[in-house]
Amino acid sequence: MLNFDLHIPTRILFGRDTHKEIGTLLQPYAKKVLLHFGGSSVKKSGVYDAVTASLKESNMEFIELGGVVPNPRVSLVREGIALCRKEGVDLILAVGGGSVIDSAKAIAMGAYYDGDVWELYEQQNPITKALPVATILTIPAAGSESSNGTVVTNEEKQMKLGYGSIHLRPLLSVMNPELFFTLPKNQIANGVADMMSHIFERYFTNTVQTDLTDGLCETTLKTIMKNAMRVFSDAHDYDAWCQVGFGGTIAHNDLLGLGREQDWACHGMEHELSAIYDVAHGAGLAVLTPAWMQYVYKTNTNMFVQFAVNVMGVEDSYRDPDAIVMEGIARLRDFYKNMGLPSTLSELGIDESKLEVMAKKATGDAYGSEQPLGNLKKLYWQDVLEIYKLAK
Amino acid sequence: MLNFDLHIPTRILFGRDTHKEIGTLLQPYAKKVLLHFGGSSVKKSGVYDAVTASLKESNMEFIELGGVVPNPRVSLVREGIALCRKEGVDLILAVGGGSVIDSAKAIAMGAYYDGDVWELYEQQNPITKALPVATILTIPAAGSESSNGTVVTNEEKQMKLGYGSIHLRPLLSVMNPELFFTLPKNQIANGVADMMSHIFERYFTNTVQTDLTDGLCETTLKTIMKNAMRVFSDAHDYDAWCQVGFGGTIAHNDLLGLGREQDWACHGMEHELSAIYDVAHGAGLAVLTPAWMQYVYKTNTNMFVQFAVNVMGVEDSYRDPDAIVMEGIARLRDFYKNMGLPSTLSELGIDESKLEVMAKKATGDAYGSEQPLGNLKKLYWQDVLEIYKLAK
Repeated sequence: MLNFDLHIPTRILFGRDTHKEIGTLLQPYAKKVLLHFGGSSVKKSGVYDAVTASLKESNMEFIELGGVVPNPRVSLVREGIALCRKEGVDLILAVGGGSVIDSAKAIAMGAYYDGDVWELYEQQNPITKALPVATILTIPAAGSESSNGTVVTNEEKQMKLGYGSIHLRPLLSVMNPELFFTLPKNQIANGVADMMSHIFERYFTNTVQTDLTDGLCETTLKTIMKNAMRVFSDAHDYDAWCQVGFGGTIAHNDLLGLGREQDWACHGMEHELSAIYDVAHGAGLAVLTPAWMQYVYKTNTNMFVQFAVNVMGVEDSYRDPDAIVMEGIARLRDFYKNMGLPSTLSELGIDESKLEVMAKKATGDAYGSEQPLGNLKKLYWQDVLEIYKLAK
Repeated sequence: MLNFDLHIPTRILFGRDTHKEIGTLLQPYAKKVLLHFGGSSVKKSGVYDAVTASLKESNMEFIELGGVVPNPRVSLVREGIALCRKEGVDLILAVGGGSVIDSAKAIAMGAYYDGDVWELYEQQNPITKALPVATILTIPAAGSESSNGTVVTNEEKQMKLGYGSIHLRPLLSVMNPELFFTLPKNQIANGVADMMSHIFERYFTNTVQTDLTDGLCETTLKTIMKNAMRVFSDAHDYDAWCQVGFGGTIAHNDLLGLGREQDWACHGMEHELSAIYDVAHGAGLAVLTPAWMQYVYKTNTNMFVQFAVNVMGVEDSYRDPDAIVMEGIARLRDFYKNMGLPSTLSELGIDESKLEVMAKKATGDAYGSEQPLGNLKKLYWQDVLEIYKLAK
């Protein structure tokens, strides 16, 4: 096990009706709030009304910026930064899923940054402060509600990049699983694929002697998968949403990856799909993950056997390690399929024309700075291309 | 699952050599530190020298207060409070195990409290601030390094009471498992019994639909037990200590109990043993826990079957639920025994003379305010007496 530095100061209020307390919760921290959200769904669902009513009841001033789209755009972030400066906003309240929260975090750090905020994503210079961000989660998936990360898309450059800092961990996040009842099946499935991938990226490692985090990863994966099937068939299953929702939070708050070398190749490969084709992140991950497993597993067969047995429930009767692994991967594919997720790039509307371009962008070769993806097995652009082809 | 409010702002630095960075870590937060510790072991082990060297290197002023004993005394706490006020201390650095940390937390809140600090334990009035506490853990057991709690003993009153507040979560905690290499076997065993009990108190519940935290509890228990056997036979097994050490932290930082009604009867019953007989907390828990299980399991047989199967590995071939539970309890007793822990009160030097007195103190009857212990099954003083007798 490796040394680690863990710091998750985000407070989490979880359960029924918790979003109605947002005014009281934020009152000690802010005078003027930027209420940041996506499309009309928060208004239709009544969340917008409940939140604004609570803010008003606590006599909090707020202004609004809606319009965040999946794969959130840096153009809207820039607008938000200008607004925060002009209006003297001192806290950003993100009401939505990962895209809204990531956009809010980008605004939060951009408000204190002298240059253009996209430079932070490109140059990865450390920030020393950001506006506090609070969140009310309406789509469990990205884990951004307690993570230190933000991912945004530069639509002009067709680039999707991430940035991480302790200053981007939200001050507090509110999770009321009742707000997930209105999610359409494809958003449920995409979210589940995303949270599972957050665990896979941490779980598959060459670091040894990791019993505790192995077990935490495995039990969280199994819990999410089991309860995902329940909410997929009944989106009003509150208890199952509790498991999936909080599972998604710990999947990405760093706990499960402590002391482990992490991978992150699948996320790197997927960002290129989203950047060019604007596909849903979770759907892209569902396509790429089994292909990645198939391509890399021989680097550490034991780890993939452990996954197949402990997570996918492959029985001991499969004696051959390769057979065990392949059965585990097959079951994972089946799981994604049962959630209505795509299995191939072509189902995502991605043909072969840009596979090489994407592979070279993923590994930095397109920008003249080769940086192989992943840690379990280092992937160069030729490897990434092979994985894209396996996923065709 | 119940609503919850989770907030663990403690930063954790984990791994080899991390304690040598303490000066750099604390420098932004304090000018004058109270270095709080127990007996001579921190000096013998070299930890004291490493820590003071690091503080000096960062030009930090510090004063010292050693002498904390297991079941830490409120008399020393009072001394610490006076010292902090007189010397203008702005941070307390606890170097030790749970007793030292709990003593530090008591000083930290007492420094801002106008009355006698023991009143806080007796009256449970909420505090609004405390001095920041940092810790360097030398005995993994109590989980106090990231918990919100403190337990101290009033030696005059023969009372051991706890107090909890968000203001008592340490600012940061340093855990270098190499510092555990010199622990004697009995301290290892006591510590393991304590951390296991922290999970049991959260795990055994009547709350339903708790897949995620069930799984987190079970995997943490299994990891601790498996690796405890390793460190018990080789105290220099760094990798096994990593699992046990961090397992002990998450056992008591609240994560594993989220959204569950918790029990805490065993801790309540044990505090009476420690208060009068000054026994090691872990040893007391090892004696009482199996007796408690035996007494209460029929209130929720399913929960205890789940424990026996998922944690203690009892096979399906035991068809009768009672037999499964009894086998699970037997295996737990065996585990404690293999760790050299006592099985009976008499092994702790406790005879029958004060069982009724302790039972009535545990449930408040001795003070004229009956408050039954536990939640899985409410225990009145007569129940507690029965459990003490089962543990004779």
